[in-house]
Amino acid sequence: RINGERLWASLMELAQIGATPKGGVCRLTLTDLDKQGRDLVTGWAREAGMTVTIDRIGNGFMRRAGRNNALPPIVTGSHIDTQPTGGKFDGNYGVLAGIEVVRTLNDHGIATEAPIEVAFWTNEEGSRFVPVMMGSGVFAKAFTLEHAYAATDTEGKTVRDELARIGYIGEQEPGDHPIGAYFETHIEQGPVLEDNDVTIGVVQGVLGIRWFDCTVTGMEAHAGPTPMALRKDALQVATLLMQDVVASAHRHAPHGRGTVGMVQVFPNSRNVIPGRVKFSIDLRNATDALVDEMADEVKAYAAELSEEMGLPIHIELVSSYPAQGFNPGCVDAVAQAAHKLGYSSMPVVSGAGHDAVYMAQLAPAGMIFIPCKDGISHNEIEDAKPEHITAGCNVLLHAMLERAGV
Amino acid sequence: RINGERLWASLMELAQIGATPKGGVCRLTLTDLDKQGRDLVTGWAREAGMTVTIDRIGNGFMRRAGRNNALPPIVTGSHIDTQPTGGKFDGNYGVLAGIEVVRTLNDHGIATEAPIEVAFWTNEEGSRFVPVMMGSGVFAKAFTLEHAYAATDTEGKTVRDELARIGYIGEQEPGDHPIGAYFETHIEQGPVLEDNDVTIGVVQGVLGIRWFDCTVTGMEAHAGPTPMALRKDALQVATLLMQDVVASAHRHAPHGRGTVGMVQVFPNSRNVIPGRVKFSIDLRNATDALVDEMADEVKAYAAELSEEMGLPIHIELVSSYPAQGFNPGCVDAVAQAAHKLGYSSMPVVSGAGHDAVYMAQLAPAGMIFIPCKDGISHNEIEDAKPEHITAGCNVLLHAMLERAGV
Ligand SMILES: NC(=O)NCCC(=O)O
Ligand SMILES: NC(=O)NCCC(=O)O
Repeated sequence: RINGERLWASLMELAQIGATPKGGVCRLTLTDLDKQGRDLVTGWAREAGMTVTIDRIGNGFMRRAGRNNALPPIVTGSHIDTQPTGGKFDGNYGVLAGIEVVRTLNDHGIATEAPIEVAFWTNEEGSRFVPVMMGSGVFAKAFTLEHAYAATDTEGKTVRDELARIGYIGEQEPGDHPIGAYFETHIEQGPVLEDNDVTIGVVQGVLGIRWFDCTVTGMEAHAGPTPMALRKDALQVATLLMQDVVASAHRHAPHGRGTVGMVQVFPNSRNVIPGRVKFSIDLRNATDALVDEMADEVKAYAAELSEEMGLPIHIELVSSYPAQGFNPGCVDAVAQAAHKLGYSSMPVVSGAGHDAVYMAQLAPAGMIFIPCKDGISHNEIEDAKPEHITAGCNVLLHAMLERAGV
Repeated sequence: RINGERLWASLMELAQIGATPKGGVCRLTLTDLDKQGRDLVTGWAREAGMTVTIDRIGNGFMRRAGRNNALPPIVTGSHIDTQPTGGKFDGNYGVLAGIEVVRTLNDHGIATEAPIEVAFWTNEEGSRFVPVMMGSGVFAKAFTLEHAYAATDTEGKTVRDELARIGYIGEQEPGDHPIGAYFETHIEQGPVLEDNDVTIGVVQGVLGIRWFDCTVTGMEAHAGPTPMALRKDALQVATLLMQDVVASAHRHAPHGRGTVGMVQVFPNSRNVIPGRVKFSIDLRNATDALVDEMADEVKAYAAELSEEMGLPIHIELVSSYPAQGFNPGCVDAVAQAAHKLGYSSMPVVSGAGHDAVYMAQLAPAGMIFIPCKDGISHNEIEDAKPEHITAGCNVLLHAMLERAGV
């Protein structure tokens, strides 16, 4: 069993870097704070006798040698960057749980057959640079290194320059790195485990995601002198479509999700009828067929609305992440470990994308979820219980050992 | 008849001050550009033999003596300030039409019984400092001079300091200034005259206005892992209420207006369920009873929604402008002048607030509307036809002469 207090202490120490007054963490990717976080974690890895390799997109691989180093490593990991108003656990837990697994093996002098590696993936959050899950995406060749390098933040700084600035451009070609199996521990970021009072979520797979930007174009006009019949109010049309995004998720239960998270109204003045409204659409479901069906329905309704109201509606695909089932052997290793350790567990799906989705395209992969308070994450009040943090890490240890061989 | 070319030339010359590349004007109140505009206009007034008085809120009164200067003056006017992306005609037309009336009387050596005055009111637009219609509001004692002085822009500069800086704090106490009757020419800022192919709008009165801020509070959560049934999506509730704002206007036709112009979503992130949505509500109608009925209906629906959805909804009154009917004698003087001059005319209501609303609380008042292109104003593409500009000024001339006596 792992040392829960040591893991908790490491989590709290890392959370000091970029700590916010409200108890959260703001450690945006490729900032000075991200460098400090990376330095702290790689320092701990070296203290634990691990070697550290950085690849050209700044992904880090912290390796504990096995008895047979010709075998591909059993890898775990997650990310060190956070949201602007992020919490202490999202991502960081997955990396430090990996470090704790190695520390535990060291404590007990346990050698594994295959090497063990703990990875941290660059820019999982995507709040400073898009796309999200950048490091793992480059690693899995979902998009090119050049594409990632060229991404800019709101100040026009590029990923390449910022990586170089903080000293985290390595030599290794991303993906030139075999993986025997991949496990990732993560807080659930949703309320299902807490709602069911269950400790371990055995993640079966990750929902398919489609992101769209929708623009409704009307005609801006003065709110007073313009009679209702002569208006082209972009917001009124947009609100109908925003409701359909949510309705489409209800129509495609139980795993359908529909969210409008971002809205911009132009010119956004109290006494001006909106001439243009731009909003995001986030659709998710358990299979790509289902999520595409949702998208088709929303688009069909938009076309109908546009026709009826006489206002152009433009819907543009921004990103698409296919639904990804995890490897049955890895899923089973997680379920067995939870059972053996005496933790309550249930099968769950991940509604959020994770680096493990890209890893699942390259190697057998699985994920371990633990409950987080009120299901809240991407928020400074994100919280998790020490006993759940410990439990998730114990499951990780046993699942990895099962795969690595003792 | 007035000299339409001279009036047009003056409008175009004033529009140079703060001219924008797109053909509009940005001359925010109490800026250096506003000072230049005021200096140009008062210079023209002095050239036309008028005396200029400035009051303590910076309102200007440009006076042409009558035969009997014991009589209260017949006043016309409007404002010189513009919106940030404003046009050449809103406000400026009303002031320069007054100057053109005086120039025409001079050309023809016509003396009036009562004096004639042309006023420019400080900060009608309200885009740099609130409240809107500030100068005429102080003049009509709708709020105090101290309240207006203390208003700050986004940089923290006060009205008082900015007035002093541009040299437009006069000695006269606002309101210590008798008014025999008040007329204001203005572009319609709406599409009704153009839609009816009519030259002169005989303004019967101004709609009552209520401005509210509405806040819906939900719970922000991750768009992926949060099942639909466990969400508190503030935007979904807000969109229902936004639709009711517009529906309430349709229920209270023909003069009902309902607009949501401004929306802020928190945290406004693509994959976060909105935890809070704040939006503006602008309700208008021909009587205060009707606009209050609209407000009561919207509030009742909000209470019902809040109860049904379990999300708090807070609605706060921001500003209230009572409906204002114009003086039948002044309305008739406008209608008669249009008829005599052979212009097509129709009775209209003003959906927008104007300085004339405050003047109507002090003296018999009336307004003259002319069409503007596509009904658009508060926009750099705001436009009006020279023949309409001329027609409105001719109607003003005759209405004022009728009141001033020749
Ligand atoms: N885990 C996580 O927040 N991923 C970001 C992409 C998503 O919205 O699912
Ligand atoms: N004329 C004008 O734009 N007034 C501003 C106040 C309003 O919205 O009616």
